[in-house]
Amino acid sequence: MTSDLEVQDSSGVPAALSGRIVISVDAMGGDRGADAVVAGMAESAAKNPDIGFILHGPKADLEPLVAKRKLTERCVIRDAGDVVTMDEKPSHVMRRGKGTSMWSTIESVRNGEAAVAVSCGNTGALMAISMVRLRKLPGVDRPAIACLWPSLNANGFSVMLDVGADIRADQRDLMQYALMGSAYARDGLGIERPRLGLLNVGTEEHKGRAELKIAYDLIETASRRADFDFHGFVEGGDIPGGEVDVIVTDGFTGNVALKTAEGTASLIRTFLSEAFKHTPLSRVAALLAMTSLRRLSKRIDPRRNNGGVFLGLNGTVVKSHGSSDATGVSSAIKLAFKLSESRFNDRLAARLSELGEADTDTQDRSATDA
Amino acid sequence: MTSDLEVQDSSGVPAALSGRIVISVDAMGGDRGADAVVAGMAESAAKNPDIGFILHGPKADLEPLVAKRKLTERCVIRDAGDVVTMDEKPSHVMRRGKGTSMWSTIESVRNGEAAVAVSCGNTGALMAISMVRLRKLPGVDRPAIACLWPSLNANGFSVMLDVGADIRADQRDLMQYALMGSAYARDGLGIERPRLGLLNVGTEEHKGRAELKIAYDLIETASRRADFDFHGFVEGGDIPGGEVDVIVTDGFTGNVALKTAEGTASLIRTFLSEAFKHTPLSRVAALLAMTSLRRLSKRIDPRRNNGGVFLGLNGTVVKSHGSSDATGVSSAIKLAFKLSESRFNDRLAARLSELGEADTDTQDRSATDA
Repeated sequence: MTSDLEVQDSSGVPAALSGRIVISVDAMGGDRGADAVVAGMAESAAKNPDIGFILHGPKADLEPLVAKRKLTERCVIRDAGDVVTMDEKPSHVMRRGKGTSMWSTIESVRNGEAAVAVSCGNTGALMAISMVRLRKLPGVDRPAIACLWPSLNANGFSVMLDVGADIRADQRDLMQYALMGSAYARDGLGIERPRLGLLNVGTEEHKGRAELKIAYDLIETASRRADFDFHGFVEGGDIPGGEVDVIVTDGFTGNVALKTAEGTASLIRTFLSEAFKHTPLSRVAALLAMTSLRRLSKRIDPRRNNGGVFLGLNGTVVKSHGSSDATGVSSAIKLAFKLSESRFNDRLAARLSELGEADTDTQDRSATDA
Repeated sequence: MTSDLEVQDSSGVPAALSGRIVISVDAMGGDRGADAVVAGMAESAAKNPDIGFILHGPKADLEPLVAKRKLTERCVIRDAGDVVTMDEKPSHVMRRGKGTSMWSTIESVRNGEAAVAVSCGNTGALMAISMVRLRKLPGVDRPAIACLWPSLNANGFSVMLDVGADIRADQRDLMQYALMGSAYARDGLGIERPRLGLLNVGTEEHKGRAELKIAYDLIETASRRADFDFHGFVEGGDIPGGEVDVIVTDGFTGNVALKTAEGTASLIRTFLSEAFKHTPLSRVAALLAMTSLRRLSKRIDPRRNNGGVFLGLNGTVVKSHGSSDATGVSSAIKLAFKLSESRFNDRLAARLSELGEADTDTQDRSATDA
């Protein structure tokens, strides 16, 4: 039966999945194993009749899981026996990674069977494989990882990038991050006209590093032709503050900020539970407040924020949190579906190429003027 | 009577304050005005018979406040009519600042009347005046601002620096921050042998920027002769995480991390109060939990964390939070007293000079070897 499924239509999508939007899913590498991943796929499939999957991992293990969740009709399995572990170095994975489920997952995007890949595995390895196999979009120097951040804005989330694809970013990279991040906020979060800020240590224009001042001008110029509003420099407090929807920074600063915020949230959770254990009365209050506290936890839980999305490659990769449960996997798949449905990556590529041509025009004019 | 107080002993301390540890206090520039500052001084004076003050600001306004709080015997007033405002640019303050209470506050440290200054005013202006009037300690290239951070460590706080004195820091600066920060943790927080980490995007040695790898080696070498334990690279989540007591980073990253954490704490406070308003039951729970929630608020309230301490100058400056109330001012004064009593700055200067000599020795040897 599986061999029947492997018949492909003209676009390269397995015939069984024809007419569906296909997501390539890595079954392995997450902390909770393939079972949580397949359970997440089933959650998504139940809500969304238009979705189909190519699932990568050891076929013998995956077949019963897929059957149990009644996904056989909507899921093609690609056998890949090896697994990339969480602590494996990216360089090591690049040498021996071909037989892994992660490699195979990206390969389905590379050959056009799927537009978006989802994996809960090792971030560094996933980025390394994605870079080498998918390659960068024309005009992009550094791909970026964008994450969703709980926020006081209307949408409940802001987009921040780069949070760790590369530790450096020059002014041109930051400008490209602005384009990529605002495109993602539009297509992934449905924010029509995202408000965008450039992260700095002060909001006055004279502060901060030299490359940030140049990036400020580049983004301001780009914003006139793009569909986002540039709010200028923002500070760390503005990331969750709700004044902007997209925050642009280099991968070093973004990664520190993300992990600091996660650490702060976890510190407050600890303090909160200590506070509620302090007296008999506070223990009663904690009991009554259980639902409220769970609601709070949900809003700040990083597992629900889908980890990150790799932007700037020929294909989109959604990195779900390593500890994602079925709900976490399902929300990563939902995001992947949205990005695939809106043809996010094609539109981003077109926008970047437009801008590249405009840049060349400007340079040509400058050359003529000189 | 005030003129009597101005008689000085041989060390330059006003005679009326002789035998006391004298703190130079800026009455102006905080959001809550001189009243909150004088109230904070009174709180400290009530708890600590060894403390005396030189208070800077408009004498006519301050005299009644000081009399009301029964501080006349322990407080010398220095008349300074001008005030540095919160949004004034440091460069502007440097040109016209001589008549301000802030300038006068630093001047008392410069001329040896007081060992430590406390101000709730504009951070940038305070740093600019401190740099120019106190000057850097021999061997220090860049002074730093250290802040206290709520933490899961035994002490309840960790020290992080630099959080914004300078946006750059090279490997040598980072190494000096390690010495300054660990000295501060020892003398200010009473941590005998601080555990210190260098902030990076990954804990493996191969990750991160080039200057961080060199700083890693410099700090490791320095730690063998200094009294702190070097824990190597740490990540953003480790700042509040309790594994280390001192976190070293450049002022750009430190400032972003600090403001991101403050923003996250404030986001969670908002979400928490929304969660507690959600249903009638949760409103009852909130009522019962009031004390617990206040206890939590206290632990994460930045006003209680004394803002920052300027390190690496000939004299110590404690920057209290702009919105400090009497309790906030009093805890800044307590910290200033501790640092003054332990002769923190003299000991730091000696340590830095030792290290400088060791450096020179090494360089001499290298020169001979070459």
